[in-house]
Amino acid sequence: MSRVLTFGEMLMRLQPADGKPVSQTGSYNVFYGGAEANVAIGLSHLGHEVSYFTALPERHPIAKAMILHLQKAGVETDAIIRKGGRIGSYYLEPGVSLKAANVVYDRSHTSVLRLADQEIDWVSLFSGKGWLHITGITSALSESMHHVVLAAVKAAQSAGVKVSFDFNYRSKLWPAEEAAKAYKEILPYVDHVFAGWKDFAWLFGWKIEGDDYEAQLESFYHKLSDDYGVTTASSTRREILSSGKHRLNGYYFADGKLYSADPISFDVIDRVGGGDSFAAGILHGMMRGEGTADMIRFALYYSVLTHLVIGDQSDYTEVDVAHFMANQLSDVSR
Amino acid sequence: MSRVLTFGEMLMRLQPADGKPVSQTGSYNVFYGGAEANVAIGLSHLGHEVSYFTALPERHPIAKAMILHLQKAGVETDAIIRKGGRIGSYYLEPGVSLKAANVVYDRSHTSVLRLADQEIDWVSLFSGKGWLHITGITSALSESMHHVVLAAVKAAQSAGVKVSFDFNYRSKLWPAEEAAKAYKEILPYVDHVFAGWKDFAWLFGWKIEGDDYEAQLESFYHKLSDDYGVTTASSTRREILSSGKHRLNGYYFADGKLYSADPISFDVIDRVGGGDSFAAGILHGMMRGEGTADMIRFALYYSVLTHLVIGDQSDYTEVDVAHFMANQLSDVSR
Amino acid sequence: MSRVLTFGEMLMRLQPADGKPVSQTGSYNVFYGGAEANVAIGLSHLGHEVSYFTALPERHPIAKAMILHLQKAGVETDAIIRKGGRIGSYYLEPGVSLKAANVVYDRSHTSVLRLADQEIDWVSLFSGKGWLHITGITSALSESMHHVVLAAVKAAQSAGVKVSFDFNYRSKLWPAEEAAKAYKEILPYVDHVFAGWKDFAWLFGWKIEGDDYEAQLESFYHKLSDDYGVTTASSTRREILSSGKHRLNGYYFADGKLYSADPISFDVIDRVGGGDSFAAGILHGMMRGEGTADMIRFALYYSVLTHLVIGDQSDYTEVDVAHFMANQLSDVSR
Amino acid sequence: MSRVLTFGEMLMRLQPADGKPVSQTGSYNVFYGGAEANVAIGLSHLGHEVSYFTALPERHPIAKAMILHLQKAGVETDAIIRKGGRIGSYYLEPGVSLKAANVVYDRSHTSVLRLADQEIDWVSLFSGKGWLHITGITSALSESMHHVVLAAVKAAQSAGVKVSFDFNYRSKLWPAEEAAKAYKEILPYVDHVFAGWKDFAWLFGWKIEGDDYEAQLESFYHKLSDDYGVTTASSTRREILSSGKHRLNGYYFADGKLYSADPISFDVIDRVGGGDSFAAGILHGMMRGEGTADMIRFALYYSVLTHLVIGDQSDYTEVDVAHFMANQLSDVSR
Amino acid sequence: MSRVLTFGEMLMRLQPADGKPVSQTGSYNVFYGGAEANVAIGLSHLGHEVSYFTALPERHPIAKAMILHLQKAGVETDAIIRKGGRIGSYYLEPGVSLKAANVVYDRSHTSVLRLADQEIDWVSLFSGKGWLHITGITSALSESMHHVVLAAVKAAQSAGVKVSFDFNYRSKLWPAEEAAKAYKEILPYVDHVFAGWKDFAWLFGWKIEGDDYEAQLESFYHKLSDDYGVTTASSTRREILSSGKHRLNGYYFADGKLYSADPISFDVIDRVGGGDSFAAGILHGMMRGEGTADMIRFALYYSVLTHLVIGDQSDYTEVDVAHFMANQLSDVSR
Amino acid sequence: MSRVLTFGEMLMRLQPADGKPVSQTGSYNVFYGGAEANVAIGLSHLGHEVSYFTALPERHPIAKAMILHLQKAGVETDAIIRKGGRIGSYYLEPGVSLKAANVVYDRSHTSVLRLADQEIDWVSLFSGKGWLHITGITSALSESMHHVVLAAVKAAQSAGVKVSFDFNYRSKLWPAEEAAKAYKEILPYVDHVFAGWKDFAWLFGWKIEGDDYEAQLESFYHKLSDDYGVTTASSTRREILSSGKHRLNGYYFADGKLYSADPISFDVIDRVGGGDSFAAGILHGMMRGEGTADMIRFALYYSVLTHLVIGDQSDYTEVDVAHFMANQLSDVSR
Ligand SMILES: [Ca+2]
Ligand SMILES: [Ca+2]
Ligand SMILES: [Ca+2]
Ligand SMILES: [Ca+2]
Ligand SMILES: [Ca+2]
Ligand SMILES: [Ca+2]
Ligand SMILES: [Ca+2]
Ligand SMILES: [Ca+2]
Ligand SMILES: [Ca+2]
Ligand SMILES: [Ca+2]
Ligand SMILES: [Ca+2]
Ligand SMILES: [Ca+2]
Ligand code: NI
Ligand code: NI
Ligand code: NI
Ligand code: NI
Ligand code: NI
Ligand code: NI
Ligand code: NI
Ligand code: NI
Ligand code: NI
Ligand code: NI
Ligand code: NI
Ligand code: NI
Ligand code: NI
Ligand code: NI
Ligand code: NI
Ligand code: NI
Ligand code: NI
Ligand code: NI
Repeated sequence: MSRVLTFGEMLMRLQPADGKPVSQTGSYNVFYGGAEANVAIGLSHLGHEVSYFTALPERHPIAKAMILHLQKAGVETDAIIRKGGRIGSYYLEPGVSLKAANVVYDRSHTSVLRLADQEIDWVSLFSGKGWLHITGITSALSESMHHVVLAAVKAAQSAGVKVSFDFNYRSKLWPAEEAAKAYKEILPYVDHVFAGWKDFAWLFGWKIEGDDYEAQLESFYHKLSDDYGVTTASSTRREILSSGKHRLNGYYFADGKLYSADPISFDVIDRVGGGDSFAAGILHGMMRGEGTADMIRFALYYSVLTHLVIGDQSDYTEVDVAHFMANQLSDVSR
Repeated sequence: MSRVLTFGEMLMRLQPADGKPVSQTGSYNVFYGGAEANVAIGLSHLGHEVSYFTALPERHPIAKAMILHLQKAGVETDAIIRKGGRIGSYYLEPGVSLKAANVVYDRSHTSVLRLADQEIDWVSLFSGKGWLHITGITSALSESMHHVVLAAVKAAQSAGVKVSFDFNYRSKLWPAEEAAKAYKEILPYVDHVFAGWKDFAWLFGWKIEGDDYEAQLESFYHKLSDDYGVTTASSTRREILSSGKHRLNGYYFADGKLYSADPISFDVIDRVGGGDSFAAGILHGMMRGEGTADMIRFALYYSVLTHLVIGDQSDYTEVDVAHFMANQLSDVSR
Repeated sequence: MSRVLTFGEMLMRLQPADGKPVSQTGSYNVFYGGAEANVAIGLSHLGHEVSYFTALPERHPIAKAMILHLQKAGVETDAIIRKGGRIGSYYLEPGVSLKAANVVYDRSHTSVLRLADQEIDWVSLFSGKGWLHITGITSALSESMHHVVLAAVKAAQSAGVKVSFDFNYRSKLWPAEEAAKAYKEILPYVDHVFAGWKDFAWLFGWKIEGDDYEAQLESFYHKLSDDYGVTTASSTRREILSSGKHRLNGYYFADGKLYSADPISFDVIDRVGGGDSFAAGILHGMMRGEGTADMIRFALYYSVLTHLVIGDQSDYTEVDVAHFMANQLSDVSR
Repeated sequence: MSRVLTFGEMLMRLQPADGKPVSQTGSYNVFYGGAEANVAIGLSHLGHEVSYFTALPERHPIAKAMILHLQKAGVETDAIIRKGGRIGSYYLEPGVSLKAANVVYDRSHTSVLRLADQEIDWVSLFSGKGWLHITGITSALSESMHHVVLAAVKAAQSAGVKVSFDFNYRSKLWPAEEAAKAYKEILPYVDHVFAGWKDFAWLFGWKIEGDDYEAQLESFYHKLSDDYGVTTASSTRREILSSGKHRLNGYYFADGKLYSADPISFDVIDRVGGGDSFAAGILHGMMRGEGTADMIRFALYYSVLTHLVIGDQSDYTEVDVAHFMANQLSDVSR
Repeated sequence: MSRVLTFGEMLMRLQPADGKPVSQTGSYNVFYGGAEANVAIGLSHLGHEVSYFTALPERHPIAKAMILHLQKAGVETDAIIRKGGRIGSYYLEPGVSLKAANVVYDRSHTSVLRLADQEIDWVSLFSGKGWLHITGITSALSESMHHVVLAAVKAAQSAGVKVSFDFNYRSKLWPAEEAAKAYKEILPYVDHVFAGWKDFAWLFGWKIEGDDYEAQLESFYHKLSDDYGVTTASSTRREILSSGKHRLNGYYFADGKLYSADPISFDVIDRVGGGDSFAAGILHGMMRGEGTADMIRFALYYSVLTHLVIGDQSDYTEVDVAHFMANQLSDVSR
Repeated sequence: MSRVLTFGEMLMRLQPADGKPVSQTGSYNVFYGGAEANVAIGLSHLGHEVSYFTALPERHPIAKAMILHLQKAGVETDAIIRKGGRIGSYYLEPGVSLKAANVVYDRSHTSVLRLADQEIDWVSLFSGKGWLHITGITSALSESMHHVVLAAVKAAQSAGVKVSFDFNYRSKLWPAEEAAKAYKEILPYVDHVFAGWKDFAWLFGWKIEGDDYEAQLESFYHKLSDDYGVTTASSTRREILSSGKHRLNGYYFADGKLYSADPISFDVIDRVGGGDSFAAGILHGMMRGEGTADMIRFALYYSVLTHLVIGDQSDYTEVDVAHFMANQLSDVSR
């Protein structure tokens, strides 16, 4: 099995402990995550050897906490660069009923933003690795970070390391046009893309062709394959029935065909990390060489599990996911 | 825009912090509210200048807490009279699923009950004000409090101050007949009434005329206008799908016509204060001189927001309500 | 009214206080229960005189806590034998959405397991009692505990004490065949059985006859009556709409006929103890000599209440249950 | 051993859960106690059969909680009268460092205050009892409650029941002169008094005779014996080194002589109930007929234990107190 | 009495809610403060009219929380400028036993740092004011902030507004030499200085003259008066007996003489804000025109109170401080 | 630097979250530790490569939590054997004031107890290691575990791995004579012993020779060296001033001489793990080849730090300990 590298920024989530709005609360629960760190932790619990690369402040207790958090999940942290700059963080007011969740970022001037191309030794980072996972969030952080990302995917290609790229468009970080431009620079170096209907229709502005959601999505993936040579891709389709109840389906495109699972409706306990778990599940299936149907179904249920768990990641293993699938909607097991 | 005075009793809500019944819990969360204080706080956050008038015990730490609570929301508290008597309080066991919420009052012998007509200087209380808001709860407290209320509305009329009156019938405080008799003494001095179908049908015992809920409600409002000269009125229609899920609509009567919004179904996090926020929303619209449809829709969504927030009031502004309306049922905004 | 004895093992439930999985949590809430103790506490609050018999470790603070817990509910604890061995406990991860609740037992080597037939003075335990309630869990604990159970029911028969027996099959404690064999040894001494469709179809492997659930259940009860002389029986039918939403109905078999109530759908706050409350409700009705329909409806609503309450038991009285039935789906009562 | 009756008012203590002042806190921990209830619970855990008599509101969840609380400790509650009126409560801000603890009472208009002489059947209350324990707090509540107390001690005398009386002077409830007058009406019916140096010097205004504290106290007790025929008495001497550190000694007067223990300095975790535990310890020793020295030392250490425990009472037994005395100032026992 | 303006930066304190180190905790309590805001809040509760001036981010929920926090204490917030930039914050691990408290700042790039001289209308800010209070922390933030401070004190002088200046040297923000240079530019415009022995000896490097602490301090104050024309000054002397136990004394210099109080030893609950309360107490005394001895003693006890209270400020009034002084080291007041 | 192996049993500590006694609490905080695991975690944070060996149940969520806990600290867990049996646990009531902490064990029938000599491959466990650390607790668990310990130390000797042995006598696990006999079987294979005055005087019953504590301790160590060839040893001397205040000194014996530090008095926040941190500190110094005085002082302060930290271990590094030593008794560092 391949060894994996993920690279991005880690954030501290501050969420009111008493369920009140940020303007009224007096206490916070704290969670550590980040799209790429979440994928790293997920893959580690699923049995893969994973390293996470980022930059963090020197002698900062939150940086230490983040490293202990990764280490707890078995993720290797030796490559992390310590330097000046801040810890990135955000306040999360979870959605409730009709009210959407809201994020207020405090992620300017972070250590990652001070990472310079030339100080990163991609060759040794990729030594012994078979896979690199990145997301569009890193490119969103700054023009210079986008250059670092481009350097990373080029170096990966040179090193024979496969690249997966999750669009993860964040409207609070940059405008759609900028994101689209950046993503299109990355795509030529990518082996697998996590991007869906909205990304192609709204971000890339591609023409919608086909009668229904699935036909349209398949047509987008064909164009992606044609234009950028990315021949496998995946995405979820999320319908918000209420902030506490979502319906989710998973799609996988390969060999020019779109595969899907049956949609699942479920209550949402903590939505953060849900998309990243789907990504980890798909990567897990691809690295294991599993069949398409099993892979999507696994990724989908694994993603649902992460929505049911407080925190950005879970510590479930393959056996746990199988147990969940087999026992859904049963009474207490005792 | 008018400056507003509200007058009533403030209460301490004791709610089990662990979700257990009062008979089993060992800890409480505490909230400060009261129908008139809730309207005052709501209007203040919506941008109005508001004073709140009540009586509270001297040198009592909960009285201090209540004043700090009002002050935090920008409500003026200088007129509050300090004297003997107790703080009013109640235990709330929130409803859950099929089980209705329950209130156990401990509000006898409070300071407000010791307020005497002659010690209140209504002329200076109304100086510079354009609006007085009261509720039926105050009349329910005692015969003498009802006389204070009557004195208040008469003085308001003399001062050219408009009066809004929320029935807010509380069956644990007095029988329906007594309430009806008292309300009818107040109505001649009132400019806007918050009262609905049940109030007219069950409390006043008026004949139900018309085919459906809306027709019946409109007929009630006509009679109200005919009998008491109250030409504008409003109310909500609440359907309890479960203690945790309500459907709410809002109605406004003016120019002899009934206006309504589209009903909203939503999960209930903390139902207390929901009705008062509707009242505040309507008063806000009336004072702003907004159109009928916008006013009802705003009041309805503002009320829903208060159901989603822990505590008797929220600190949302007009911009927040607009943001809520625009983003309902979306995914995390990040 | 009869005085009641229940006999079984008491357990400490350890449930993550922060809603995280056991592998991630740092704090637990603790609850004391056990199928027979739950029935004892329920019957005590419903107005019966109840004694609970078990074995607990000497000078152990959790044993003390358990005794104080029973005593708080008015259950007599004088007969409890103190000896060596451990306290039984289990970890509970409550179900959420599609995910089933899970129990991890730590109940080996407990004090109850050291109870020897000869040290129990059944004659004095049954003195002045009219009813004994036991469950299949006790037989599941060990071969020797099953012998103690058999001794108990035989002694009850000799003493003219009626016996109720709740199958309460626990798949994590023993295989179905062993349980079936043991239960069949107990049944000849039993007056009322709590067992349902699954117990007969899956545990006993009885042939399913009849068109629908109710016909099949009635046919099972007929066979039970024919084969073992148990002429009254009851059970619930539980449908898991989600881990947080169940539909429940109750059945009672007597005089060769099956009686039922209308099913109730409700949100589940804490499922533990739900079945035991149904049992307590039925026993209450039988001991009060109430009509079949009232008895099932009472037991069903009483069971629902226990699902809405944190902890294995509630402290509700008959008046509370009546209040609940009368006020379901109403707004705050204030 | 004698069976004991105690009689008084039970209170709910509301103490900020977050250690903030009452004016700033948003949550409370709740404790149930009262000087006489505390003695009842203490004596019950020390192995005596104890009944507690008071009045509580009907169908009030806090009244239920209080009864469950007494029942949990094994105290009999059958004699409690249910009637109108409120639950008594108080806010406690515990002392810290140089800052004294502060109590704000909310105990007007309680159910106990509605107790009428004639509705109490002292003969049956004293049936089978050997001891009555009361405190000066009950007389402080109202003139009519003082008459009830006088009726109680007279009835006790008639029934051959010994009476212990704890002065427990509360300056926030009544002036010293009133208390002194009332206490002097009670004393002729009393067998054992809990009162100390300050009570005689400041409340009764007795002349201070003797060179040091102990000589003065002995002289007071002689006068008590001479004037009122109370031949045994006891008290603690408390020195406040800081709100969190006290030095305590215990005194016992009998046969015309004053006995004492060695003073103990200790940290205070929760001071409430400390004096009542000393009283319970002395009563325990008197009822057991223990030697003077052992009795004072036991009562003193038992009182210290209650200062170390959160809540108004502890559940320690004789064995626990002995263990505490034997192991004080040792390392973890493991 | 004078109306007061204070100006500085407000910070969010993040303190582990479970007492664990920042690197291990999962939850924080949050407090809002800042040296100048603390003085503003203190003076407001002591009965003065106070405005606070700062810059805060636009539409940021923590900015809103800070404004509500000031408003709750009665501090006027209308002058606050909203603009870009971050909220300043810090992590506090409180000291325990021998271990010193530690602060990790996250206060770079804040909104205050974007304040430009020219956008501040000092004339209207000082309109109707009699006093300006600032601290050295603001000058420490950046060179440009120091220029803003200089502009403020010059404008105050022009407006006839008295200026008090608290050195509040923060070694984590700037080196001693820089601070000394900046402070010396401010001093010519200052009427009252809060600075002590260490500030003169270590920061300014002034020669130590005199036999003991008090003689040396007096000599420093003489030099301050001679060199900078600052004729009144004050300071505390803090001895750290342990992180949880301090000894504090207060000094006031006026008319060329040094006045002091008796030192107080006390337990420390929350040290933050302790120094600012001393400053508020002195300013209160100066504005009230109280005698030197009363003023120092009041300021000292008021400061001690703030050490005993969780949070950066307290809500105590003059009456509360007097009550504290009168009742120190007494038993529960009940 | 040497790589280290530690071997023993890991326990779950259940400590009441609300500070109440076990018999009264409803919630627990949970900590994972064990003497040998604590040393492993300490050494890992101090910069060493450490493996921990034990046995844990298969597919048990607490076993998973324990492994994640070790992993978080960087301790290698690959050698841990998964098998049947229970998780060991204990209830801790921390000491307070005069009251000693108390431990109630629930550690019978654990997985470690099922470890059989023959299933452990000591040769591969010691491969690449330079040091083995064990404690007397493991021998206390059972006769067969003592045989495993003997096998371990013999195998270590064969592999050229140094052995440190901490007596850690637990009176609740076995009698002194049994422990002494077992320890004497282990000592011949040991290079460094952690044992002190009480161990030699009370456990081994050795004659006390010398005038004072230090002379006596030195004489004991001489005898240890003479009788068992253990030429280096260390211990702490702990004086319990109160459960919350200890005085601690450290001793180290080498080259026939006893070295010591200056005793430290400090407040105790969480005493668990304090001794193990001293051991880790000494081992750290020995492995680093540091001077005797520095080593003892470091170990002593490192031990004190662990007393100030909630949990059985801390995550402090060498730099943190140096910072603590340099800044003790200072004011907030900001
Ligand atoms: Ca999640
Ligand atoms: Ca994603
Ligand atoms: Ca609400
Ligand atoms: Ca309302
Ligand atoms: Ca339940
Ligand atoms: Ca059952
Ligand atoms: Ca206590
Ligand atoms: Ca007392
Ligand atoms: Ca403070
Ligand atoms: Ca300061
Ligand atoms: Ca510790
Ligand atoms: Ca140790
Ligand atoms: Ni973590
Ligand atoms: Ni994500
Ligand atoms: Ni399972
Ligand atoms: Ni508030
Ligand atoms: Ni009254
Ligand atoms: Ni938004
Ligand atoms: Ni309980
Ligand atoms: Ni059950
Ligand atoms: Ni009701
Ligand atoms: Ni209790
Ligand atoms: Ni012990
Ligand atoms: Ni605040
Ligand atoms: Ni910048
Ligand atoms: Ni006082
Ligand atoms: Ni841990
Ligand atoms: Ni950990
Ligand atoms: Ni065994
Ligand atoms: Ni430092």
